[in-house]
Amino acid sequence: MNVELIGVTPHPEKLPAMAAMLTHSKATPQDLEKSSEKELNTVLSHVMKLGHTSVIEHSNFTFAISGVSRSLTHQLVRHRIASYAQQSQRYVNLEDPCFVIPPKIKKQTEMKKAYEKTMQVIWEQYNKLLAMDIPAEDCRYVLPNATCSNIMVTMNARSLLNFFELRCCLHAQWEIRTLANKMLQLVKKEAPIIFKHAGPCCKTKGYCIEHNKNCKWYPK
Amino acid sequence: MNVELIGVTPHPEKLPAMAAMLTHSKATPQDLEKSSEKELNTVLSHVMKLGHTSVIEHSNFTFAISGVSRSLTHQLVRHRIASYAQQSQRYVNLEDPCFVIPPKIKKQTEMKKAYEKTMQVIWEQYNKLLAMDIPAEDCRYVLPNATCSNIMVTMNARSLLNFFELRCCLHAQWEIRTLANKMLQLVKKEAPIIFKHAGPCCKTKGYCIEHNKNCKWYPK
Amino acid sequence: MNVELIGVTPHPEKLPAMAAMLTHSKATPQDLEKSSEKELNTVLSHVMKLGHTSVIEHSNFTFAISGVSRSLTHQLVRHRIASYAQQSQRYVNLEDPCFVIPPKIKKQTEMKKAYEKTMQVIWEQYNKLLAMDIPAEDCRYVLPNATCSNIMVTMNARSLLNFFELRCCLHAQWEIRTLANKMLQLVKKEAPIIFKHAGPCCKTKGYCIEHNKNCKWYPK
Amino acid sequence: MNVELIGVTPHPEKLPAMAAMLTHSKATPQDLEKSSEKELNTVLSHVMKLGHTSVIEHSNFTFAISGVSRSLTHQLVRHRIASYAQQSQRYVNLEDPCFVIPPKIKKQTEMKKAYEKTMQVIWEQYNKLLAMDIPAEDCRYVLPNATCSNIMVTMNARSLLNFFELRCCLHAQWEIRTLANKMLQLVKKEAPIIFKHAGPCCKTKGYCIEHNKNCKWYPK
Repeated sequence: MNVELIGVTPHPEKLPAMAAMLTHSKATPQDLEKSSEKELNTVLSHVMKLGHTSVIEHSNFTFAISGVSRSLTHQLVRHRIASYAQQSQRYVNLEDPCFVIPPKIKKQTEMKKAYEKTMQVIWEQYNKLLAMDIPAEDCRYVLPNATCSNIMVTMNARSLLNFFELRCCLHAQWEIRTLANKMLQLVKKEAPIIFKHAGPCCKTKGYCIEHNKNCKWYPK
Repeated sequence: MNVELIGVTPHPEKLPAMAAMLTHSKATPQDLEKSSEKELNTVLSHVMKLGHTSVIEHSNFTFAISGVSRSLTHQLVRHRIASYAQQSQRYVNLEDPCFVIPPKIKKQTEMKKAYEKTMQVIWEQYNKLLAMDIPAEDCRYVLPNATCSNIMVTMNARSLLNFFELRCCLHAQWEIRTLANKMLQLVKKEAPIIFKHAGPCCKTKGYCIEHNKNCKWYPK
Repeated sequence: MNVELIGVTPHPEKLPAMAAMLTHSKATPQDLEKSSEKELNTVLSHVMKLGHTSVIEHSNFTFAISGVSRSLTHQLVRHRIASYAQQSQRYVNLEDPCFVIPPKIKKQTEMKKAYEKTMQVIWEQYNKLLAMDIPAEDCRYVLPNATCSNIMVTMNARSLLNFFELRCCLHAQWEIRTLANKMLQLVKKEAPIIFKHAGPCCKTKGYCIEHNKNCKWYPK
Repeated sequence: MNVELIGVTPHPEKLPAMAAMLTHSKATPQDLEKSSEKELNTVLSHVMKLGHTSVIEHSNFTFAISGVSRSLTHQLVRHRIASYAQQSQRYVNLEDPCFVIPPKIKKQTEMKKAYEKTMQVIWEQYNKLLAMDIPAEDCRYVLPNATCSNIMVTMNARSLLNFFELRCCLHAQWEIRTLANKMLQLVKKEAPIIFKHAGPCCKTKGYCIEHNKNCKWYPK
């Protein structure tokens, strides 16, 4: 899995701070642009603490993601307040095997071998179908959920907070949780105030959305 | 593929007609409710002809869909102005093989046999992993795009018009096009004025969004 | 203010319960439709308790609202996961004065008189401009926020829960809070399980989103 | 009216071009980032011509707007695929008169005087109510649609194209059309390929969405 942050709204913490000030002030946006960094940061910290997150919608983040499974992307694109561009299995011939192996399978040598053997059988069949002039869009019916995909995602900071709440949770599946954690590391550097307390609900709001008392992160 | 319409806003053409009248009238919604059916239908036909489709958002349609592939559902859930509930491959053990066969493969006996053989290998591996206590959410990495899924979808009429425009097009993939055509047949019965001219762009707007002059439906 | 519920998804608690069952079951939607009411209600109560509210998006509610101010509608239409149709001040001549009086002004006789006098001045000017062939869309620049408006709103149950959380709060403005409370009473009758705990955050989640310790509802 | 573009996704035409290439290629986003500017521009021009505008959602634009009426903002916030922060009439005392005058009123001296006189009466009443300790949120009921407001808006390029289509149209109201035209001038400088053909439907698609044959822009 490779995750890069390839686009960020310039000054991703200034715009939200200005937005917050704008709502409660006589000042025009033109005036507010001249606010000191300190003032802007104080305001932003305050609204984040209050949970008034509508203002952080003004900052957007674009990620380039490669080497993730179609299991992951099928979950990812369920987040509707976001924009996506994904490698198409209709238009791209994927004749070279490329697949994700779940860690629990990877660590058991025999099981891993059997898994890889199945992948080999699958791709042989995929390539056979391609060779018989079946269009890629039909050949792909044999391809597994494990198949690697590339995807670009743009989300605003408010949608990201929701994404992290759900997907950094230990209840989330390992692969999308890994992605979410990598994304969180990347945006924290760009917008430390906004994402200071980002993460699973237990860390951010102090309660477990899964009501799972057996979870090691369950709040005491 | 099984598609049923299991939920429809009552009077799905009355509410949009009232909405259209409300915007241009002194009358309250309470007054407008008493309009004759004929009057309501005339107004709705008029706004549909003008393409002022915001009013048809007030009517919603819920479909129960089963026996479709995960290829299809991955495309379907990209439509963001909609609500979904899909059978989870994390929580449901899918030990019995259940998969879609593309028509181009189905009609060639040898190819179909080879396809089915691959499916058998896949499910054997899936069940082997399950038997070795690998959680279903990891076992599913071997499952193919062809795997059957169940999904419920709710869309409003405006979002449906857009769905039909894109997915009833001959450029759309055969499986989602089949679904779109079935959905269109179902909603046409419930809301004949709204969906009178629904379908691919060439039929509804007289031009080809794919600019594909080789398409048999390309407008003369 | 007049608020009516003029459209509801039939069986607004059955569809969400089916949606919840669908995600965790091998059963098709067709099978699930046959579930007993008791079973469906148990499932729905459970998911509502867990806060897994995506399934309640499948139920939609349409309200006809009249006699509310443009102050209110400007706030209302900020809720983006909803559909609206509003009386237009561009196309409708509003020559007869019709306005909302805030309770704090209404209860003080002198103040109320002065308020009504201002409204009279405003409408005289509005009608004078109309008489001089200024188009309604320009005449309306003099009309006050208090001007009565009619609006139709459709929201799904999940969006409504969010609406109630924000607008039933004592921090919300009195007029939109009155509307929210009326809407809540109406939907509770139709979907008692879904809206059992609906209301301001302090009532539903036990904490104050405004962090306002001076509020009489502040959780002890 | 003052409109400034205060935030733009860096390289607002590169990300969409990469997104377009990603969907049809084996290349990872990391590879695609190295594409030449010429190649990226060619791809983007091509997809824009085809109308495949989902890729331009990855570029976002933030505008700071001041000196516009509440008539305008009430229309503006109806565009739901966007983020807003608006000066609150609940929290900000607007004791100094500040209002928009429609051009048709402005150009007739007597009418303008009468209009300004009404505004004076309104603000006197507003300030009287404030002085009697009526909260600003109630005092504002007398304020006119003409009242000046400040608002920040973020929209992605796809949503902007739709906004321009509807609001640059001669059928749109003069004030929001003025805003739309100013916004279009600003974004054209930043993303000339994306917005090359942006504007009202008659200019972009060659037909009139209002079916108004009397319009001077009606396509021949």
